Amino acid sequence: MADNQRRHFLASAGALASLSVLSASSHATPSQAISLPPVLHMVYFWLKNPDSQQDREKLITGLNSLREIPQIKALHVGVPASTLVRDVIDNSFDVSELMLFDSVEDQDAYQLHPLHQKFVEECSHLWRKVIVRDSISA
Amino acid sequence: MADNQRRHFLASAGALASLSVLSASSHATPSQAISLPPVLHMVYFWLKNPDSQQDREKLITGLNSLREIPQIKALHVGVPASTLVRDVIDNSFDVSELMLFDSVEDQDAYQLHPLHQKFVEECSHLWRKVIVRDSISA
Repeated sequence: MADNQRRHFLASAGALASLSVLSASSHATPSQAISLPPVLHMVYFWLKNPDSQQDREKLITGLNSLREIPQIKALHVGVPASTLVRDVIDNSFDVSELMLFDSVEDQDAYQLHPLHQKFVEECSHLWRKVIVRDSISA
Repeated sequence: MADNQRRHFLASAGALASLSVLSASSHATPSQAISLPPVLHMVYFWLKNPDSQQDREKLITGLNSLREIPQIKALHVGVPASTLVRDVIDNSFDVSELMLFDSVEDQDAYQLHPLHQKFVEECSHLWRKVIVRDSISA
C-alpha cells in the first residue's frame, strides 16, 4: 500500500471506529470522548485475608482472565482510590470489577460463560463477601 | 470547505479521536473496543420517596447536568437492571451514577466544580442515603 493510500485507509478506519464509539450513547457531549454501553455490572469484593497481597493479586489476575469473554465490551479491575475522604465514601472493599455490556441478555450470558465459571471455581475461596450492582441507562 | 476536504478533515479527526480512546488503557483486548480511564467514581442513591417517578426524574436530570464538567471523561446514569436474580445482587438502590476520570486529582477537582455544587444544592433533598465507591485500576 502506498504511503498516501495507507494514510487514507488509517484515517477512514479511525473515523469508523470513533463513530461506532460515539454512537453507543446519545448522551455524549463533545467533552466526553468515551461513550458507554447501557448495561453496567459492578462487583465489590472483600477478601478473607485482606492483608495478603498474594490473595489480592490472585483475584486481580482471575478478574483479568475474564477479558476474553466476548460479551464484555469493557472491563475495569480496581482497588480503592485515595480520593478526598468524605463520610459518604465506603472504600472498605478490597477489589472492584466493572463490566459494560450492550444488553441485559449479554450480561446473563456472561454469567454462564465457561471462563466465568472457571474464575468462580478458582477464586471464590478468596473472598468473604461480594456485592453486585447491575444498572441500565436511565 | 469543499466536500472532499471536509471528508479528509472528518477522517483525520476521527483517527485522532479513536487513537486517544485506544491509548487510554493498556489492558484492552481486540474484543474490547472501549478502553476506560483509570479512576472510577461510583455512586448509589436511595430516594426519600422511591415511589415518586417525579423525584427519580429530577435526580436523573440533575446527574445529567454534570456532563458539562470537563474532568468527567464518561458518565453513566442508571437505574437497577433486570438481570437474573442471584443472592449476591443488591439492586435496592434507586439511581446509580458512574463517572470516569483520568486521575484522582481530576475527581477531587470535580467535587469542587460549581456545577457539582449546584447539583448537590438542588438535588440532595431527594435522597435519604448515598454510597460512594472510588476505584483506581489495579
